[in-house]
Amino acid sequence: MTGATNLFSGLPQAALPTEQFDTLLDHSNVKIERIISTGHCAPETGWFDQEQDEWVCVLEGDARLEIDGQGETALSRGDWTFIPAHQRHRVTYTRTSPPTVWLAVHVYPARR
Amino acid sequence: MTGATNLFSGLPQAALPTEQFDTLLDHSNVKIERIISTGHCAPETGWFDQEQDEWVCVLEGDARLEIDGQGETALSRGDWTFIPAHQRHRVTYTRTSPPTVWLAVHVYPARR
Repeated sequence: MTGATNLFSGLPQAALPTEQFDTLLDHSNVKIERIISTGHCAPETGWFDQEQDEWVCVLEGDARLEIDGQGETALSRGDWTFIPAHQRHRVTYTRTSPPTVWLAVHVYPARR
Repeated sequence: MTGATNLFSGLPQAALPTEQFDTLLDHSNVKIERIISTGHCAPETGWFDQEQDEWVCVLEGDARLEIDGQGETALSRGDWTFIPAHQRHRVTYTRTSPPTVWLAVHVYPARR
């Protein structure tokens, strides 16, 4: 252990050209990421279709997540959800300023 | 997906007799928990000595975490750290009111 690091440190003061991904833990079949969105929707075209399960929450900001065939869900500070592998999804809105900060825990089917 | 659930919902209005543990995801070798502390230190005697690795952050509140042989670290909103399996540790302080809210991601050595 090397002391604490902060989920809200180093947030951008202006809109980012692309979303920012910071890996907080990369561990066997688990990856924990901080994602910073400033108005981004993703992917720009089509859907995410992932091999891994994903637990995700919004730590700060506002977002909208669309699940294929199930419509959109608004996510605000503290809201979390679980996206099973191959559940097609996309982000249709994120708050620009202050930035939207996500925490994602990806669980892969096998150790990597 | 059944819509979002919130990390800050249902927080206690008064001190709890014991810490509150809410399992948010229980998945193969990974467990994600919300922990609510209202002044609790844990364990009351001795140390935690876990078989699993733990990534943990403070979402709200203040805490102090002692690592055996390495002293104490203060943790406030957004601070996170990684505690390897069998790294003896204990919580020596948590803010009572408003409660201290933790998010812990436990990664077990084998699928359970």
